[in-house]
Formats: sequence, structure tokens, C-alpha cells
Amino acid sequence: MTATLATLLVSCPDRKGIVASLAQTLYGHGANILDSDQHSDPGAGMFFQRIRFDLATLSTDRVALEHGLREVAERFGMTWRLAYATHRARVAIFVSKYDHCLYDLLLRHRAGELPCELAMVISNHADLAPVAAQFGVPYHHAPITAATRPAVEEATLKTLDDAKVELVVLARYMQILSPAFVAARGPGGIINIHHSFLPAFVGASPYHQAYERGVKLIGATAHYVTDDLDEGPIIEQGVVRSSHRDAVSDLIRKGRDLEKVTLAAAVRWHLEDRVLVYAGKTVVFD
Amino acid sequence: MTATLATLLVSCPDRKGIVASLAQTLYGHGANILDSDQHSDPGAGMFFQRIRFDLATLSTDRVALEHGLREVAERFGMTWRLAYATHRARVAIFVSKYDHCLYDLLLRHRAGELPCELAMVISNHADLAPVAAQFGVPYHHAPITAATRPAVEEATLKTLDDAKVELVVLARYMQILSPAFVAARGPGGIINIHHSFLPAFVGASPYHQAYERGVKLIGATAHYVTDDLDEGPIIEQGVVRSSHRDAVSDLIRKGRDLEKVTLAAAVRWHLEDRVLVYAGKTVVFD
Amino acid sequence: MTATLATLLVSCPDRKGIVASLAQTLYGHGANILDSDQHSDPGAGMFFQRIRFDLATLSTDRVALEHGLREVAERFGMTWRLAYATHRARVAIFVSKYDHCLYDLLLRHRAGELPCELAMVISNHADLAPVAAQFGVPYHHAPITAATRPAVEEATLKTLDDAKVELVVLARYMQILSPAFVAARGPGGIINIHHSFLPAFVGASPYHQAYERGVKLIGATAHYVTDDLDEGPIIEQGVVRSSHRDAVSDLIRKGRDLEKVTLAAAVRWHLEDRVLVYAGKTVVFD
Amino acid sequence: MTATLATLLVSCPDRKGIVASLAQTLYGHGANILDSDQHSDPGAGMFFQRIRFDLATLSTDRVALEHGLREVAERFGMTWRLAYATHRARVAIFVSKYDHCLYDLLLRHRAGELPCELAMVISNHADLAPVAAQFGVPYHHAPITAATRPAVEEATLKTLDDAKVELVVLARYMQILSPAFVAARGPGGIINIHHSFLPAFVGASPYHQAYERGVKLIGATAHYVTDDLDEGPIIEQGVVRSSHRDAVSDLIRKGRDLEKVTLAAAVRWHLEDRVLVYAGKTVVFD
Repeated sequence: MTATLATLLVSCPDRKGIVASLAQTLYGHGANILDSDQHSDPGAGMFFQRIRFDLATLSTDRVALEHGLREVAERFGMTWRLAYATHRARVAIFVSKYDHCLYDLLLRHRAGELPCELAMVISNHADLAPVAAQFGVPYHHAPITAATRPAVEEATLKTLDDAKVELVVLARYMQILSPAFVAARGPGGIINIHHSFLPAFVGASPYHQAYERGVKLIGATAHYVTDDLDEGPIIEQGVVRSSHRDAVSDLIRKGRDLEKVTLAAAVRWHLEDRVLVYAGKTVVFD
Repeated sequence: MTATLATLLVSCPDRKGIVASLAQTLYGHGANILDSDQHSDPGAGMFFQRIRFDLATLSTDRVALEHGLREVAERFGMTWRLAYATHRARVAIFVSKYDHCLYDLLLRHRAGELPCELAMVISNHADLAPVAAQFGVPYHHAPITAATRPAVEEATLKTLDDAKVELVVLARYMQILSPAFVAARGPGGIINIHHSFLPAFVGASPYHQAYERGVKLIGATAHYVTDDLDEGPIIEQGVVRSSHRDAVSDLIRKGRDLEKVTLAAAVRWHLEDRVLVYAGKTVVFD
Repeated sequence: MTATLATLLVSCPDRKGIVASLAQTLYGHGANILDSDQHSDPGAGMFFQRIRFDLATLSTDRVALEHGLREVAERFGMTWRLAYATHRARVAIFVSKYDHCLYDLLLRHRAGELPCELAMVISNHADLAPVAAQFGVPYHHAPITAATRPAVEEATLKTLDDAKVELVVLARYMQILSPAFVAARGPGGIINIHHSFLPAFVGASPYHQAYERGVKLIGATAHYVTDDLDEGPIIEQGVVRSSHRDAVSDLIRKGRDLEKVTLAAAVRWHLEDRVLVYAGKTVVFD
Repeated sequence: MTATLATLLVSCPDRKGIVASLAQTLYGHGANILDSDQHSDPGAGMFFQRIRFDLATLSTDRVALEHGLREVAERFGMTWRLAYATHRARVAIFVSKYDHCLYDLLLRHRAGELPCELAMVISNHADLAPVAAQFGVPYHHAPITAATRPAVEEATLKTLDDAKVELVVLARYMQILSPAFVAARGPGGIINIHHSFLPAFVGASPYHQAYERGVKLIGATAHYVTDDLDEGPIIEQGVVRSSHRDAVSDLIRKGRDLEKVTLAAAVRWHLEDRVLVYAGKTVVFD
């Protein structure tokens, strides 16, 4: 049944008639709208909409429907994306040595929470190969040094392209990606988990910073990767109470739980086509 | 500017074309959709939508628009409500002796958080008359006993009708309303705050029950009042951690904060036409 | 260093001089108190304390220290427990087919979050044997039917005793344990995770109940098992927001996260000797 | 009964025997310990303890007890404070034009949540005088400009001293206090509420910053005021979810609730002698 579902995600300058045009077009082709969520940012003058609809009752066909939508999109100057439920995005998970986010994503995927195909795990270390193996996911060991970075990144990009990977998830990957790599994967192509409540503690060792500052809450932030390190559009943030009783090791333990949940939510929302980016931030139709 | 806004709230059996029909109708009259949120319950076969739109650009007039919407509503068997921003619902707050929820509502109203007119405060005690007076809200002291209940309730209903009160808010009102009173105010006409996480601790003294049971979280529940005491559709719930260190008095203190925030959210959502009731529960377009 | 730590957990009728007697005794033997937390319940007239101290500077020896503590305990009528950090409790995890809590406990144990030895996984199904195997934990498959229950339970008790298991963790174990089994393991000997905010939705299918009732928050409860099903002393509770958008399957997904975190916290606190039970509830020195 | 309670708060370099010495001294004088909480920071080598005890059974007198405690304090190099429940700290609330935190503190005080005397409200504006009047609290209108600041601050300090004010609470007071003023009130003498999750958004307009950055959580921070603006020791932090749907005005509305709850908790903990400061951060025995 769900094989006939599709999701339309659009953004464009706001003006009258957008909702009606899209709804009318879908109705005209016999599609049945199941869910729609919409947002306007009056300051930015922007319009955003997510429509989930059923193609089972389509009176024309997909080609005709896409043609119709393209006409509407052009009329309103829309950026749009149409995703069919039959298409499952291929995802690559980048890790280093920490295993908690990797296990979490693998288990959620197996439990059916993440509508995607796990194409591969890529790591600059060999340590987590057995974990990937347990779940039947290919593991690429790509050691990297300052000297080999350009070549390794180029090879990795080719690996991703060959495997038709659409989304890269940095699950506590401890290497900084070059601007060239980020650009090659495109906007919204890489999700990272930062182990802090951004923008409070950017950079390395945020738990140590949080400990020194004596904050009463620690956080984690899932965001799209851009050239500005730790500055990409935020998709989701989580937070948990801390106290003077928490040593740095306790903050790290609490942080692991936060990182898992926060990253998983961001990845799920991305895969369900719930996230739109504009002006350095996100609209999340959750 | 916001004086030209309106909100349409509809529910009906789900079928194809509802979204398109409503959007097309609004567009045809020149209305500009600002926000729309929609929900379908496949199990119940029901469709729900909230549309907020701007009338400033209306090419016809309100009469014509309402006529058009009525046609759509009839075609799809809709229950619908159209609320203009220029109309501010008149609200009566019922209290006994606790003042925290009353102060909270009065202060939020003055801060502009609650789009309504506070028509009156009604109480079975005289204690809180000075509080209402400070905020310039009329206070009706209506003492009630088992013997006088029918007469007092009848008089109160007349007072409410005369003042064109649309919503009654029970802000820790310690009297039980008769089924006749509840029926007279209509479905969705009365919001209550229950000082517990329903359905965990129904009835009186939930904080004592929570203490005895040793729960690690206490809650509060805002709900519409129906004949089934503590069983009306839930609009909002809040929760806060508790521990062995909390005496009953601490639970009561924590509960006050919860009750204020939870009740205020429910009242605000109701006044912003965000709440739909079906099958004993709510859809809240927050 | 931490090998020289010990934790003393006491409860007794409250009276003057308890704190001084314990502190003086520890000091007299040269122990260094690192942490102490104390609670009195005036209503119940009870005193509770947890003291963590370092034996590295002991001027006598453990035998003498225990003798001294025993004297104090007898004087005040204390129930007491002294746990050395060198002793790691042996734990058995009971599962059926759900794997999320099992994986979670196994991973936390490997990450060093749970100070215990995982003696075995016991299940009425064979499904999760490979999971236990991945982590090198013995797996006992003990199928059970109404007819075989007494015999199977008896055999299981023997298995637990033979393996010197001190704590049984029911990680979504879908069988009800007999009163005889519960009694045999002793008070505080079994921790269960109930997939609901108790006492809101006792019994089976709480997520379906929560969906039907339209609650805005769902919960999970970790508690000690007693003869009263779902009524044992609560150790920890977690909660997460839900809305009309959540189908039962979404509630189940959210519930999995809650169950993992809530159960893990309860097990960790138990293993760190932070939990005392009295009057059907707990004191948790967290 | 509670009139005979007292609270001892100590901090000192950590070494063996502190707990025993204090407990023994209290016991020796016949005091009954009700609650004690303790913390050691191994990194800083510091010891902290809060003991609440009952003087009703004192076998000596307060002078003798204080003498005994002073001896222990000198032996261990303690910073210590002994607070009798009969002494209620006198508090001055500083405000500008926002009334939400002021009302909140006044109402909580009247509800018995804050063990103090509200000595006065001080403001650089006249607007909130009627609010203070409703609660019978003296109101000092002290307009301030860059030119008059030194003189006004000096006069204010005298007013505070004359009224024996021990704690100043900045309840959204929109003036920056000079280092001289802060120094005159002493360490831990002034509590401020910052309308942000520090250190994420220091400085002015944090809600605008949060909006621009598109964060998914906003916060509030209650802290002691030091010379470093927004850098004083954090006592409490609160947080609430936000989304793309929140305009700056919504963030401000949500922030008001956070500010009230967060400031009130910090003030209550301070007044209950639960807060110790060291190394730029706090130990909060909550």
C-alpha cells in the first residue's frame, strides 16, 4: 500500500495561489493528498510546503503528473523535489572509532525506522568493520593523513558516486572534510552530529568546555555540513540536565545518548523528506 | 494588518479533493493562504484541516466567501468553523481559592498571549475578587451548596449567556459541574486543568496519590470537560521530575507551575482555533 | 585506584547520632569519605544514607571495619549493605523477541556504563542468541508454556544460582514470572521495564491504550518486580511528547527509545548501590 | 517546629575526617541531622557539604555550638556559613519595565515558596510601582543615566545597606551594574536572569540571535553576577523547544516562561542555602 505514496517538497517566493495550484494539480491527476504541512516566513518572503499523497488512485500517470507539477513549479519559481516511496535513498555512514551512533543507526534501520538503504560504512580506522559486518553492510577502510587527504577524499567521492549514495551521515567521524568534498556532495548532502548545544561550545572537546563552564544542561546538535565548520543549518538539537556531580566522563556518557537520539531524528526527518533549508536554517515538517 | 486574518477549521470523512476544493475556493475569492496544517486519521477515516488566510486581498467579500465555503462544506459533509481575527472570543474564568492559574491567565492576557476578552471571573468564594479587580475584570461571587447548585448553575448559565461568553476556563475550580451545565455550554465549551497526569491519578488528591506511589514524574492535564469526570478529550499535558526528596508540599509547588503552563497552552490553542475534537481525543495544530 | 572504593547503603528508624556514628566509625578505621547522601522521611520516621568511601588509607582492615559497622548497625537497627568496588554483581538479562533493550544493555556494558558482569541472557525464544553471541555472553534458550512453567522456572532458578547471578533484568521479557520465582530471587532482585507511564496504563498494550485515550505524553517505567504485577517500587520513569500525528507504530518507536534509556538508568543506579526500597517506593541517590 | 532548623554550608580543601568531625560536633551538642549532602571535586581537591539539622534537642546552646563549629572550620581551613531558619534573608528585586519575573517572584513569595523578606523593589522606571504596591512591597524609583550612574549606584547601595538587604535579584533589570556596585554587594550577592542559554548567545537580543541561527531549543540562565558580564557562575538553566514556526515574538513568549521558572529556582536554592561557588561555577545541593 505505502508503495504508492509520494512526497512533494517545495520552496519559493511567497505569493497568492500556490497552495491552490499544487492541490488542484494533484487532484486533477487523481492523486489523494494524505498530509500537507506549510510554512511562510513573512520576513524572508518565502513559502514552504510538504505534501504527502497517494498515487494509487492516479487517473493519469507519473510522467503526466511530473509534467503538471513542473509547470506549476516554473510559474511560481519553485525549488521542488518529488520523492516516491518506492525509491529508498542510499546512505553512507562515516565513522572513526566511536561505535554508539553507528550501532544506533544500524539498529534503527533494521527496526524499520529509517527508510533508506545502508550502502556502506566508511571509516579512517578498521576498528568498526566487525560491527558493519554483523549487519551485512559493506565497510570501507580509508585511512587518511594530511598528506593523503586530497587523494583519499577523491577516491571516497568516487566510491560514493559509484554506489549511488545520496546522503552521507557523519556518525562521530573525527575528520574534517575539505570544502571541495562538501561541495561535491551538494547542499543538504551531509549530516553531522556535533556533541554540543551549538553555538554554545563550538570546536573540539565541548564536554570539557561545558564542565569548565559549569553549565546545568548539555546538548547535541545535528546539522547539515557546510564550509563553515559547526555553522551549517541546524536540523535537530537535544539537551539533558547535568550537575556538579557529573565528571567529564558522565557528561560524555550522557552525551552519547543525546548524540544517538538527535542524529537519528535528523536522519529520519531528512529521509522522510521533511527538511527544507533556507537562509542558513531549516524548516522541519515534523 | 492582522485584522484581516481569518482561520478555517474543518473536519469531515476523508476523501479525495478536499484540500484542492478548499484551496481553490479561497484562491478564487482572492484570499491568501498563510498557513495550513492537515491531518488524516486512516483508522477513523477522518480528515482535519486548519487554514489561516488573509482577507486583505479578497476580490469578493466575506458574504460571498462564506457562501462558497458553505458549498464546499456541504459537498464533503464537513463540520467547519470560520473565525475572523477581528472577533475575540469572550472568556469566563472559574476559580475557587487557588490563585496561581488565575494570575497566570490574567498576566498572559495582559501580555497579549491570549487572543480573547476576559468577560468575567466567577467564583464560589469571595477571596479572589481583589485579584480580578486589579486587572479590571468583573468578579461574580456565586456561592454554591448541594442544595442551591441547580439554581446557582442556572443563574450562572444566564450570566454567561448575557455576557456572550463563548469559553469557560476552570482554573482550579473546586466544584463539579452538573451534566446539565456541561451540556448547556456545548462540546468544547469548557476547559479544565486537572492536577495530574491523566489517566494516572484520577479523582481528588492526585499529589498525595503520586507521593504514595513514589512516581518519578508528576504531571498536569488540560482537557475539555464532558460528563465523564476527568475523561474529556485531552488538549495538553505537562510533566516534571520528582524524587524521594519531594514532600507532598513540594509536589504541590511543582504542580502549580505545571498547571499554569499546561492550562495556558490549552486555552491559547483553543483561542487560536487550533483544536479539533473527535472520538474522545483532540487534534491540536500547534 | 577505584579498586579501593566501597559503598555503604543503610536504612533504619530515624534518630539522633546516626550520621555521626557512621562517619566516626569510618574515620576511626582510616576510611576516606568521598560522597555521602542522606534522606529522612519524617512521615515514615525513616533514615536512609549512602556513603561512598576509599579504603586505600584504611588503618585497620576490612574485617575490622565490617565489625565496626556491624556494631553501629545493630545499635540503630539498621538494614545495611556494604559493596566493594572489586565485587562486580553478576547479571542475567531476560528477553523474548524484542532486541532494543538487549542491544542497549550490551552496548552500555561494553562502554563501561554498567559496573557488572553479564552472566547470561535467558530467553523463551531462540531469536536473540546471535546478538548475545556477538558480545560473548552465554545464551540460555528456555521455552516455556503454561504446563512447563513450574519446571522451567525451577530450572532457571538453579541456573541463576549456579552462576551466582545477583540481579535479573527483564528487558522486555514477555512472560509473567510466578510469585514463587519472584520470592526466590528476593526483594530488589528483579528489575522490569514497563512500556508505559505507570500507573496510567497498566497491563498489556499500553501504547494502544495511550493512542485511544489521545494522551499528549507517553512514558516508560523501570521498577522492581513484586507479586503485584506492574505495582512494584518505581526506580525511574521517562516520558516523551506525542501528538495526533503519532500512529500506534510511532508511539511504539518513541517508546523503544524511552524503554532503553529508562531501563538502563535503573539498572545502572541499582548496580551503583544508589537505590533503597521502603514502603513500596524507592529512594534513589542519583 | 521549623523555627529550630539550621543549615550549615561548608567548603574546604578535601581531606580525611571532615564529615566525621562535623557530624561528631553536631551530635556532641545534641543537634539532630535531618539532611546532609556532600560533594568532592577530585580535580580541584575541594570538599563541599550542606547539613540541615534541628536545634530543638540541643544539649548546649547556639553560642557553644558555633564555637565548636568554628574550631572544626579552622582546623580544616573551611569557608562556612551557618543559617538559622528564624533568620529570613532580606531581598531587593531590581526591575525595569518587564513585569513577568517580578509578578512571578511576588506570587511565589506569597505562596510561601521563597523563604525571605521582600525588602523592596528598585527600578529605573516608575512603571511597575503599582505591582509592588499590590503586594505591599516598597518601591524605589531610581532613574539612571550614564552621567548619574555613579551617584545613583552609591545611593542605591546605601538604601540596600540601610534596609539590611542581603540578596539582590535582577528580574530582567535592563541596566548594567558597575564593577564597584558588584564588588560592594560581595560574591554571591546578586542573581541575574539572562534570557539565553549561556554561553550560546551572550549579549543583547539573544532571541533575535536564536531566531537567525535557527536553533531548535531556546534557553534561559540564572547566574551570579560578576564583573565579567554574562560570565558569572551558573546556578540554573532552562530550555524549551522551538521551531521554524516560532517568530521572534513566539521565542520571547516562550522565553518569558523559561525566565520566570529558571530565576525562581535559582533564588529559592540560594535562599535555602543550597548553592556554593568555586572556580567560577556552582555546586547546587538540590
